[in-house]
Amino acid sequence: MKPTIVRTIVELRKEIASFRHSRPLGEASVGFVPTMGYLHEGHASLLRRSSQENGLTVLSIFVNPIQFGPNEDLDKYPRDEEKDVALAASCGVDLVFLPSVQEMYPQSRVTTVTVSEVTERLCGASRPGHFDGVATVVAKLLNIVQPDRAYFGLKDAQQVAVVTRMAQDLNIPTEIVPCPIVREEDGLALSSRNVYLNAQEREQALSLSLALAKVPEWIAEGVGAAELSELLKREIARSPLANVEYADALTYPDLLPPDADVPLRSIDGFMLVALAVRFGNTRLIDNRLLNPMEAGVETCSAK
Amino acid sequence: MKPTIVRTIVELRKEIASFRHSRPLGEASVGFVPTMGYLHEGHASLLRRSSQENGLTVLSIFVNPIQFGPNEDLDKYPRDEEKDVALAASCGVDLVFLPSVQEMYPQSRVTTVTVSEVTERLCGASRPGHFDGVATVVAKLLNIVQPDRAYFGLKDAQQVAVVTRMAQDLNIPTEIVPCPIVREEDGLALSSRNVYLNAQEREQALSLSLALAKVPEWIAEGVGAAELSELLKREIARSPLANVEYADALTYPDLLPPDADVPLRSIDGFMLVALAVRFGNTRLIDNRLLNPMEAGVETCSAK
Repeated sequence: MKPTIVRTIVELRKEIASFRHSRPLGEASVGFVPTMGYLHEGHASLLRRSSQENGLTVLSIFVNPIQFGPNEDLDKYPRDEEKDVALAASCGVDLVFLPSVQEMYPQSRVTTVTVSEVTERLCGASRPGHFDGVATVVAKLLNIVQPDRAYFGLKDAQQVAVVTRMAQDLNIPTEIVPCPIVREEDGLALSSRNVYLNAQEREQALSLSLALAKVPEWIAEGVGAAELSELLKREIARSPLANVEYADALTYPDLLPPDADVPLRSIDGFMLVALAVRFGNTRLIDNRLLNPMEAGVETCSAK
Repeated sequence: MKPTIVRTIVELRKEIASFRHSRPLGEASVGFVPTMGYLHEGHASLLRRSSQENGLTVLSIFVNPIQFGPNEDLDKYPRDEEKDVALAASCGVDLVFLPSVQEMYPQSRVTTVTVSEVTERLCGASRPGHFDGVATVVAKLLNIVQPDRAYFGLKDAQQVAVVTRMAQDLNIPTEIVPCPIVREEDGLALSSRNVYLNAQEREQALSLSLALAKVPEWIAEGVGAAELSELLKREIARSPLANVEYADALTYPDLLPPDADVPLRSIDGFMLVALAVRFGNTRLIDNRLLNPMEAGVETCSAK
């Protein structure tokens, strides 16, 4: 069935309220997948999961200007509304929310939601203000949709950590559901930004997932965080077009660095091994979420 | 009827959900009055209004540590739970939420809601971090209670402006209802902090409301913001125990200074004339919200 498309907050709330009142309690759950559009199979996996778990699934498509830095790709961020709506239809989406910038930010923005600590490292360090923009727009969207569950892909693992912590700290009554990374057959993590890559870059972009694939083995050999970082950088450097921005192992979801030389295999709890690598102007990220004590067994969902 | 007392978020949400489901839509509205306790007739006026306008009224009593500065009166802030519950009962309150600090801030606080611009002047200038603490706890409480309407007293007019703007910017689906200042018979604005005043200070504290009472007359005479500020300070200085922190006229609700010398009577829109005055260690605030073009007629509620 074709989803209903709404562009205003008033319309969206009306649709959701009418859904909630039409169903008996317990069958009236609302699932929500916030995106910036140009949807791929990663988004589709979130949408399908939401459709399975909820009576109503809401997809939002909004390229949020306040999470882009001054030299980032806001203006050329890829868009394809028609294709997105078709994909949404095939994934059981009921409502697509397509607000304008004016609808989301009708007056000068004076209110900001800031999450400290978990935003200090990784993308938080290289993209100042980025996570303020993410936390603020997600708080807005969660207040607009008031979903029971919201689904986020773990490719943006730090984003999942930020949103989860924000929802806890602000008592937002939505369950934040982290979902596994979806990859191309050759291992490249799906991303709307992959379209920027030329053929040569696309080939060398494989270095991210290939390096991450070696992590369990390195951990089993007893490396610490500092050595793991070096090994990852050396591995990725074999692709001459790759410029590593970071290659770090941090505790998850607190995103704190473990002691540099303590063997990671002795650390209890989840560990995030995360990469950001530039190919020309295109910045790719990828990661693995691991429980090092479980002998390098990869874990795809985080609690 | 005696209100139900709950101390945990889980219990509170259960009570509110059970109320909402027991009523047909349209009769199930929830009103909310967030306070720091030690209730007086000002709070009572908010509670009675909420009881009149809603099917369920929730009162929260929480002395929020994060809105107090390091040298402020957090430790000695007055408390009287028993008397507060009795007053709540007489005002038709259904639920009293009395959370512990641990219940409200169970982990290190990394998420902050910041409202800029409207917090630059008045109490925002003299109490750094105060309105971050207010905005953050109010965002939390609104997410916990999810009320249809929340009632705030205009004695804290800047707080009303901050909360109203935050709710708009973050799309919080609660109507923020500003309510008029309640005064003692002699004019002193009610405040939990009035108990700190000794007899002499109590007498001289009248200088705030007396000075504000002259504002319409001064405006009618054609004063600008700078002259009004001087007149207020001079008037209050007649009480030797009074130390004026600020005496300002600002646009409302944006809280911007008008041109210093433009006659206030020529300005369209609401104008806030606000005072903060210290008596010993006790800091009192008071204000009048005016529409100067309406020849000094005082207006008690703001939209």
